Amino acid sequence: MPLVTITLPDHRPVLWRKKVADLVNAAVIETLDFPEDDRYQIIQPLPVEQMELQARHRDAVILQLTLRAGRPTHAKQAFYRRITDDLARQADIAPANVMIVITENRDADWCFGHGEAPFLQAHQAS
Amino acid sequence: MPLVTITLPDHRPVLWRKKVADLVNAAVIETLDFPEDDRYQIIQPLPVEQMELQARHRDAVILQLTLRAGRPTHAKQAFYRRITDDLARQADIAPANVMIVITENRDADWCFGHGEAPFLQAHQAS
Amino acid sequence: MPLVTITLPDHRPVLWRKKVADLVNAAVIETLDFPEDDRYQIIQPLPVEQMELQARHRDAVILQLTLRAGRPTHAKQAFYRRITDDLARQADIAPANVMIVITENRDADWCFGHGEAPFLQAHQAS
Repeated sequence: MPLVTITLPDHRPVLWRKKVADLVNAAVIETLDFPEDDRYQIIQPLPVEQMELQARHRDAVILQLTLRAGRPTHAKQAFYRRITDDLARQADIAPANVMIVITENRDADWCFGHGEAPFLQAHQAS
Repeated sequence: MPLVTITLPDHRPVLWRKKVADLVNAAVIETLDFPEDDRYQIIQPLPVEQMELQARHRDAVILQLTLRAGRPTHAKQAFYRRITDDLARQADIAPANVMIVITENRDADWCFGHGEAPFLQAHQAS
Repeated sequence: MPLVTITLPDHRPVLWRKKVADLVNAAVIETLDFPEDDRYQIIQPLPVEQMELQARHRDAVILQLTLRAGRPTHAKQAFYRRITDDLARQADIAPANVMIVITENRDADWCFGHGEAPFLQAHQAS
Protein backbone atom coordinates (compact mmCIF):
# COMPACT_ATOMS: atom_id res chain seq x y z
CA MET A 1 0.00 0.00 0.00
CA PRO A 2 -0.73 2.44 -1.39
CA LEU A 3 -1.10 1.93 -5.12
CA VAL A 4 -0.01 5.15 -6.82
CA THR A 5 -0.70 5.95 -10.47
CA ILE A 6 1.64 8.67 -11.71
CA THR A 7 0.51 10.43 -14.88
CA LEU A 8 3.17 12.66 -16.41
CA PRO A 9 4.24 14.18 -19.75
CA ASP A 10 5.81 11.72 -22.14
CA HIS A 11 8.21 14.20 -23.74
CA ARG A 12 10.58 14.18 -20.76
CA PRO A 13 13.38 11.61 -20.54
CA VAL A 14 12.99 8.20 -18.95
CA LEU A 15 15.44 9.18 -16.22
CA TRP A 16 13.24 12.11 -15.25
CA ARG A 17 10.22 9.78 -14.95
CA LYS A 18 12.24 7.55 -12.67
CA LYS A 19 13.21 10.54 -10.54
CA VAL A 20 9.57 11.63 -10.20
CA ALA A 21 8.56 8.11 -9.20
CA ASP A 22 11.38 7.94 -6.64
CA LEU A 23 10.37 11.30 -5.14
CA VAL A 24 6.72 10.24 -4.93
CA ASN A 25 7.67 7.01 -3.24
CA ALA A 26 9.89 8.70 -0.64
CA ALA A 27 7.19 11.28 0.13
CA VAL A 28 4.50 8.61 0.51
CA ILE A 29 6.58 6.54 2.91
CA GLU A 30 7.80 9.43 5.03
CA THR A 31 4.57 11.44 5.37
CA LEU A 32 1.87 8.77 5.26
CA ASP A 33 3.61 6.28 7.53
CA PHE A 34 4.20 3.27 5.32
CA PRO A 35 6.98 0.64 5.61
CA GLU A 36 10.19 1.47 3.78
CA ASP A 37 9.78 -1.11 1.04
CA ASP A 38 6.12 -0.31 0.33
CA ARG A 39 6.40 0.74 -3.31
CA TYR A 40 3.55 0.02 -5.70
CA GLN A 41 3.39 2.34 -8.69
CA ILE A 42 1.97 2.51 -12.17
CA ILE A 43 3.72 5.11 -14.31
CA GLN A 44 1.63 6.46 -17.18
CA PRO A 45 3.42 8.90 -19.54
CA LEU A 46 1.04 10.80 -21.82
CA PRO A 47 1.30 13.48 -24.48
CA VAL A 48 0.65 16.82 -22.79
CA GLU A 49 -2.57 17.34 -24.73
CA GLN A 50 -4.02 14.26 -22.99
CA MET A 51 -3.70 15.88 -19.55
CA GLU A 52 -6.14 18.73 -18.92
CA LEU A 53 -5.69 20.90 -15.84
CA GLN A 54 -7.90 23.92 -16.29
CA ALA A 55 -5.99 26.58 -18.17
CA ARG A 56 -2.62 25.67 -16.70
CA HIS A 57 0.31 25.76 -19.05
CA ARG A 58 3.57 23.83 -18.75
CA ASP A 59 4.09 20.26 -17.68
CA ALA A 60 1.91 18.74 -14.99
CA VAL A 61 1.97 15.64 -12.80
CA ILE A 62 -1.23 13.94 -11.60
CA LEU A 63 -1.01 11.48 -8.70
CA GLN A 64 -3.85 9.08 -7.96
CA LEU A 65 -3.43 7.17 -4.70
CA THR A 66 -5.57 4.28 -3.51
CA LEU A 67 -5.05 3.45 0.16
CA ARG A 68 -6.84 1.98 3.15
CA ALA A 69 -9.02 4.39 5.11
CA GLY A 70 -7.42 5.64 8.30
CA ARG A 71 -4.59 8.00 7.44
CA PRO A 72 -5.16 11.25 9.34
CA THR A 73 -5.91 14.47 7.50
CA HIS A 74 -2.71 16.14 8.68
CA ALA A 75 -0.65 13.34 7.13
CA LYS A 76 -2.39 13.79 3.79
CA GLN A 77 -1.73 17.52 3.97
CA ALA A 78 1.93 16.86 4.80
CA PHE A 79 2.15 14.58 1.77
CA TYR A 80 0.65 17.22 -0.52
CA ARG A 81 3.12 19.87 0.65
CA ARG A 82 6.11 17.56 0.60
CA ILE A 83 5.69 16.11 -2.89
CA THR A 84 4.73 19.45 -4.41
CA ASP A 85 7.87 20.97 -2.96
CA ASP A 86 10.08 18.05 -4.02
CA LEU A 87 8.76 18.07 -7.59
CA ALA A 88 9.31 21.84 -7.83
CA ARG A 89 12.86 21.75 -6.47
CA GLN A 90 14.11 18.51 -7.95
CA ALA A 91 11.99 17.77 -11.02
CA ASP A 92 11.13 21.16 -12.50
CA ILE A 93 7.34 20.95 -12.07
CA ALA A 94 5.57 24.17 -11.07
CA PRO A 95 3.76 23.90 -7.69
CA ALA A 96 0.51 24.90 -9.40
CA ASN A 97 0.80 21.88 -11.68
CA VAL A 98 0.84 19.02 -9.17
CA MET A 99 -2.62 17.50 -8.72
CA ILE A 100 -3.29 14.76 -6.18
CA VAL A 101 -6.41 12.65 -5.63
CA ILE A 102 -6.83 10.00 -2.93
CA THR A 103 -9.38 7.19 -2.91
CA GLU A 104 -9.80 5.03 0.18
CA ASN A 105 -10.87 1.44 0.58
CA ARG A 106 -10.84 -1.25 3.29
CA ASP A 107 -8.91 -4.17 4.72
CA ALA A 108 -10.50 -6.77 2.45
CA ASP A 109 -9.62 -4.86 -0.70
CA TRP A 110 -5.89 -5.63 -0.96
CA CYS A 111 -3.89 -8.52 -2.31
CA PHE A 112 -0.16 -7.90 -2.79
CA GLY A 113 0.67 -11.36 -4.05
CA HIS A 114 0.24 -15.07 -3.36
CA GLY A 115 -3.55 -14.64 -3.45
CA GLU A 116 -3.55 -13.44 0.16
CA ALA A 117 -5.39 -10.55 1.82
CA PRO A 118 -2.80 -9.65 4.47
CA PHE A 119 -4.78 -6.95 6.28
CA LEU A 120 -7.55 -9.43 6.95
CA GLN A 121 -5.20 -12.11 8.11
CA ALA A 122 -3.58 -9.71 10.56
CA HIS A 123 -7.01 -8.96 12.01
CA GLN A 124 -8.05 -12.55 12.20
CA ALA A 125 -4.83 -13.49 13.97
CA SER A 126 -5.22 -10.80 16.62
CA MET B 1 -12.97 18.44 -9.19
CA PRO B 2 -13.83 16.00 -10.50
CA LEU B 3 -10.95 14.08 -12.04
CA VAL B 4 -12.25 12.36 -15.16
CA THR B 5 -10.39 9.62 -17.00
CA ILE B 6 -11.67 9.25 -20.54
CA THR B 7 -10.82 5.97 -22.24
CA LEU B 8 -11.58 5.93 -25.95
CA PRO B 9 -10.54 4.21 -29.21
CA ASP B 10 -7.16 5.33 -30.54
CA HIS B 11 -8.06 4.95 -34.21
CA ARG B 12 -10.13 8.13 -34.29
CA PRO B 13 -8.48 11.48 -35.02
CA VAL B 14 -6.98 13.73 -32.36
CA LEU B 15 -9.64 16.35 -33.06
CA TRP B 16 -12.35 13.83 -32.26
CA ARG B 17 -10.71 13.04 -28.92
CA LYS B 18 -10.64 16.73 -28.13
CA LYS B 19 -14.33 17.02 -29.01
CA VAL B 20 -15.23 14.10 -26.71
CA ALA B 21 -13.23 15.67 -23.88
CA ASP B 22 -14.93 19.03 -24.42
CA LEU B 23 -18.39 17.43 -24.39
CA VAL B 24 -17.59 15.51 -21.21
CA ASN B 25 -16.35 18.65 -19.53
CA ALA B 26 -19.43 20.69 -20.46
CA ALA B 27 -21.76 17.92 -19.26
CA VAL B 28 -19.90 17.55 -15.95
CA ILE B 29 -20.05 21.26 -15.21
CA GLU B 30 -23.67 21.77 -16.23
CA THR B 31 -25.26 18.70 -14.63
CA LEU B 32 -23.08 18.08 -11.58
CA ASP B 33 -22.81 21.71 -10.50
CA PHE B 34 -19.10 22.48 -10.77
CA PRO B 35 -17.48 25.87 -11.43
CA GLU B 36 -17.00 26.78 -15.08
CA ASP B 37 -13.24 26.36 -15.12
CA ASP B 38 -13.19 23.05 -13.25
CA ARG B 39 -11.58 20.85 -15.89
CA TYR B 40 -9.34 17.99 -14.82
CA GLN B 41 -9.08 15.18 -17.34
CA ILE B 42 -6.81 12.31 -18.30
CA ILE B 43 -7.39 11.14 -21.86
CA GLN B 44 -6.38 7.56 -22.53
CA PRO B 45 -6.70 6.39 -26.16
CA LEU B 46 -6.49 2.61 -26.55
CA PRO B 47 -6.71 0.10 -29.37
CA VAL B 48 -10.29 -1.16 -29.47
CA GLU B 49 -9.25 -4.67 -28.46
CA GLN B 50 -8.08 -3.25 -25.13
CA MET B 51 -11.59 -2.10 -24.20
CA GLU B 52 -14.02 -4.89 -23.38
CA LEU B 53 -17.71 -4.08 -22.98
CA GLN B 54 -19.57 -7.33 -23.01
CA ALA B 55 -20.39 -8.29 -26.57
CA ARG B 56 -20.83 -4.74 -27.78
CA HIS B 57 -19.46 -3.94 -31.18
CA ARG B 58 -18.37 -0.55 -32.49
CA ASP B 59 -16.44 2.15 -30.69
CA ALA B 60 -17.01 2.76 -26.99
CA VAL B 61 -16.16 5.46 -24.48
CA ILE B 62 -15.55 4.69 -20.79
CA LEU B 63 -15.67 7.55 -18.28
CA GLN B 64 -14.25 7.15 -14.78
CA LEU B 65 -15.03 10.05 -12.47
CA THR B 66 -13.58 10.61 -9.01
CA LEU B 67 -15.43 13.27 -7.04
CA ARG B 68 -16.26 14.28 -3.48
CA ALA B 69 -19.26 12.58 -1.93
CA GLY B 70 -22.38 14.70 -1.88
CA ARG B 71 -23.68 15.07 -5.43
CA PRO B 72 -27.34 14.03 -5.44
CA THR B 73 -28.49 10.96 -7.34
CA HIS B 74 -30.66 12.96 -9.73
CA ALA B 75 -27.61 15.01 -10.79
CA LYS B 76 -25.65 11.85 -11.56
CA GLN B 77 -28.58 10.57 -13.59
CA ALA B 78 -28.80 13.85 -15.46
CA PHE B 79 -25.08 13.59 -16.25
CA TYR B 80 -25.47 10.06 -17.59
CA ARG B 81 -28.33 11.07 -19.90
CA ARG B 82 -26.70 14.28 -21.04
CA ILE B 83 -23.26 12.92 -21.96
CA THR B 84 -24.71 9.81 -23.60
CA ASP B 85 -26.93 11.98 -25.73
CA ASP B 86 -24.14 14.44 -26.58
CA LEU B 87 -21.73 11.67 -27.58
CA ALA B 88 -24.39 10.06 -29.76
CA ARG B 89 -25.38 13.28 -31.53
CA GLN B 90 -22.03 15.01 -31.79
CA ALA B 91 -19.35 12.31 -31.60
CA ASP B 92 -20.85 9.27 -33.31
CA ILE B 93 -20.83 6.96 -30.26
CA ALA B 94 -23.82 4.63 -29.89
CA PRO B 95 -25.80 5.22 -26.67
CA ALA B 96 -25.28 1.58 -25.72
CA ASN B 97 -21.51 2.11 -25.81
CA VAL B 98 -21.06 4.83 -23.21
CA MET B 99 -20.07 3.42 -19.81
CA ILE B 100 -19.69 5.62 -16.74
CA VAL B 101 -18.35 4.77 -13.28
CA ILE B 102 -18.16 7.20 -10.35
CA THR B 103 -15.98 6.82 -7.26
CA GLU B 104 -16.42 9.17 -4.32
CA ASN B 105 -13.96 10.44 -1.75
CA ARG B 106 -13.78 13.20 0.89
CA ASP B 107 -12.64 16.73 1.58
CA ALA B 108 -9.13 15.76 2.64
CA ASP B 109 -8.49 13.80 -0.54
CA TRP B 110 -7.90 16.65 -3.01
CA CYS B 111 -4.93 18.80 -3.87
CA PHE B 112 -5.24 20.86 -7.07
CA GLY B 113 -1.86 22.52 -6.82
CA HIS B 114 0.47 24.41 -4.48
CA GLY B 115 0.38 21.53 -2.01
CA GLU B 116 -2.92 22.77 -0.60
CA ALA B 117 -6.10 20.88 0.32
CA PRO B 118 -8.64 23.59 -0.50
CA PHE B 119 -11.77 21.81 0.70
CA LEU B 120 -10.25 21.47 4.14
CA GLN B 121 -9.08 25.05 4.28
CA ALA B 122 -12.55 26.28 3.38
CA HIS B 123 -13.96 24.28 6.30
CA GLN B 124 -11.32 25.44 8.72
CA ALA B 125 -11.87 29.07 7.80
CA SER B 126 -15.62 28.90 8.30
CA MET C 1 -20.02 -4.52 -13.11
CA PRO C 2 -17.29 -4.57 -12.12
CA LEU C 3 -14.95 -2.38 -14.16
CA VAL C 4 -11.54 -4.04 -14.16
CA THR C 5 -8.35 -2.32 -15.26
CA ILE C 6 -5.66 -4.86 -16.10
CA THR C 7 -2.11 -3.49 -16.16
CA LEU C 8 0.43 -5.91 -17.63
CA PRO C 9 3.83 -5.98 -19.37
CA ASP C 10 3.75 -4.84 -22.98
CA HIS C 11 6.52 -7.16 -24.17
CA ARG C 12 4.30 -10.23 -24.16
CA PRO C 13 2.21 -11.12 -27.20
CA VAL C 14 -1.29 -9.84 -27.84
CA LEU C 15 -2.67 -13.36 -27.50
CA TRP C 16 -1.21 -13.62 -24.00
CA ARG C 17 -2.92 -10.36 -23.01
CA LYS C 18 -6.20 -11.74 -24.27
CA LYS C 19 -5.66 -14.91 -22.24
CA VAL C 20 -4.99 -12.91 -19.07
CA ALA C 21 -8.13 -10.84 -19.65
CA ASP C 22 -10.20 -13.99 -20.23
CA LEU C 23 -8.88 -15.60 -17.03
CA VAL C 24 -9.61 -12.44 -15.03
CA ASN C 25 -13.13 -12.29 -16.40
CA ALA C 26 -13.89 -15.92 -15.61
CA ALA C 27 -12.53 -15.56 -12.08
CA VAL C 28 -14.54 -12.39 -11.44
CA ILE C 29 -17.79 -13.97 -12.58
CA GLU C 30 -17.33 -17.27 -10.78
CA THR C 31 -16.05 -16.03 -7.41
CA LEU C 32 -17.71 -12.63 -7.03
CA ASP C 33 -21.15 -13.69 -8.25
CA PHE C 34 -21.71 -11.63 -11.39
CA PRO C 35 -23.86 -12.52 -14.40
CA GLU C 36 -22.11 -14.51 -17.13
CA ASP C 37 -21.95 -11.69 -19.65
CA ASP C 38 -20.72 -9.04 -17.19
CA ARG C 39 -17.39 -8.17 -18.79
CA TYR C 40 -16.09 -4.63 -18.55
CA GLN C 41 -12.31 -4.36 -18.86
CA ILE C 42 -9.64 -1.83 -19.73
CA ILE C 43 -6.36 -3.48 -20.72
CA GLN C 44 -3.29 -1.31 -20.19
CA PRO C 45 0.00 -2.82 -21.42
CA LEU C 46 3.07 -0.99 -20.08
CA PRO C 47 6.83 -1.34 -20.35
CA VAL C 48 8.00 -3.28 -17.28
CA GLU C 49 9.88 -0.27 -15.91
CA GLN C 50 6.56 1.55 -15.58
CA MET C 51 5.22 -1.01 -13.09
CA GLU C 52 6.86 -0.89 -9.67
CA LEU C 53 6.15 -3.68 -7.20
CA GLN C 54 8.69 -3.35 -4.43
CA ALA C 55 11.80 -5.27 -5.35
CA ARG C 56 9.98 -7.97 -7.26
CA HIS C 57 11.59 -9.16 -10.44
CA ARG C 58 9.89 -10.74 -13.44
CA ASP C 59 6.60 -9.82 -15.04
CA ALA C 60 3.71 -8.65 -12.90
CA VAL C 61 -0.01 -8.12 -13.35
CA ILE C 62 -1.93 -5.42 -11.44
CA LEU C 63 -5.72 -5.63 -11.27
CA GLN C 64 -7.82 -2.67 -10.20
CA LEU C 65 -11.50 -3.46 -9.69
CA THR C 66 -14.28 -0.96 -9.11
CA LEU C 67 -17.49 -2.56 -7.89
CA ARG C 68 -20.59 -1.83 -5.83
CA ALA C 69 -20.21 -2.28 -2.09
CA GLY C 70 -21.68 -5.50 -0.78
CA ARG C 71 -19.55 -8.41 -1.96
CA PRO C 72 -18.60 -10.45 1.12
CA THR C 73 -15.01 -10.68 2.28
CA HIS C 74 -14.82 -14.42 1.65
CA ALA C 75 -15.76 -13.87 -2.00
CA LYS C 76 -12.98 -11.32 -2.43
CA GLN C 77 -10.54 -13.75 -0.87
CA ALA C 78 -11.74 -16.51 -3.18
CA PHE C 79 -11.18 -14.18 -6.13
CA TYR C 80 -7.63 -13.37 -5.02
CA ARG C 81 -6.73 -17.05 -4.68
CA ARG C 82 -8.43 -18.11 -7.89
CA ILE C 83 -6.95 -15.50 -10.24
CA THR C 84 -3.47 -15.79 -8.71
CA ASP C 85 -3.58 -19.52 -9.23
CA ASP C 86 -4.95 -19.24 -12.77
CA LEU C 87 -2.32 -16.69 -13.81
CA ALA C 88 0.44 -18.87 -12.38
CA ARG C 89 -0.74 -22.06 -14.05
CA GLN C 90 -1.98 -20.72 -17.35
CA ALA C 91 -0.23 -17.40 -17.98
CA ASP C 92 3.23 -17.80 -16.48
CA ILE C 93 2.93 -15.08 -13.82
CA ALA C 94 4.55 -15.81 -10.44
CA PRO C 95 2.03 -15.83 -7.57
CA ALA C 96 4.09 -13.17 -5.80
CA ASN C 97 3.59 -10.86 -8.76
CA VAL C 98 -0.20 -10.58 -8.89
CA MET C 99 -1.43 -7.44 -7.12
CA ILE C 100 -5.14 -6.70 -6.71
CA VAL C 101 -6.87 -3.57 -5.41
CA ILE C 102 -10.64 -3.15 -5.04
CA THR C 103 -12.52 0.15 -4.75
CA GLU C 104 -16.20 0.18 -3.89
CA ASN C 105 -18.97 2.59 -4.81
CA ARG C 106 -22.78 2.70 -4.74
CA ASP C 107 -25.92 2.09 -6.74
CA ALA C 108 -26.05 5.58 -8.25
CA ASP C 109 -22.50 5.37 -9.55
CA TRP C 110 -23.02 3.10 -12.58
CA CYS C 111 -24.17 3.65 -16.12
CA PHE C 112 -23.56 0.79 -18.55
CA GLY C 113 -25.11 2.45 -21.56
CA HIS C 114 -28.17 4.34 -22.79
CA GLY C 115 -27.66 6.97 -20.10
CA GLU C 116 -29.40 4.75 -17.55
CA ALA C 117 -28.47 3.94 -13.94
CA PRO C 118 -29.84 0.39 -13.77
CA PHE C 119 -29.16 -0.28 -10.10
CA LEU C 120 -31.26 2.72 -9.15
CA GLN C 121 -34.06 1.83 -11.51
CA ALA C 122 -34.22 -1.66 -10.06
CA HIS C 123 -34.59 -0.16 -6.60
CA GLN C 124 -37.19 2.35 -7.67
CA ALA C 125 -39.23 -0.33 -9.39
CA SER C 126 -39.27 -2.60 -6.36
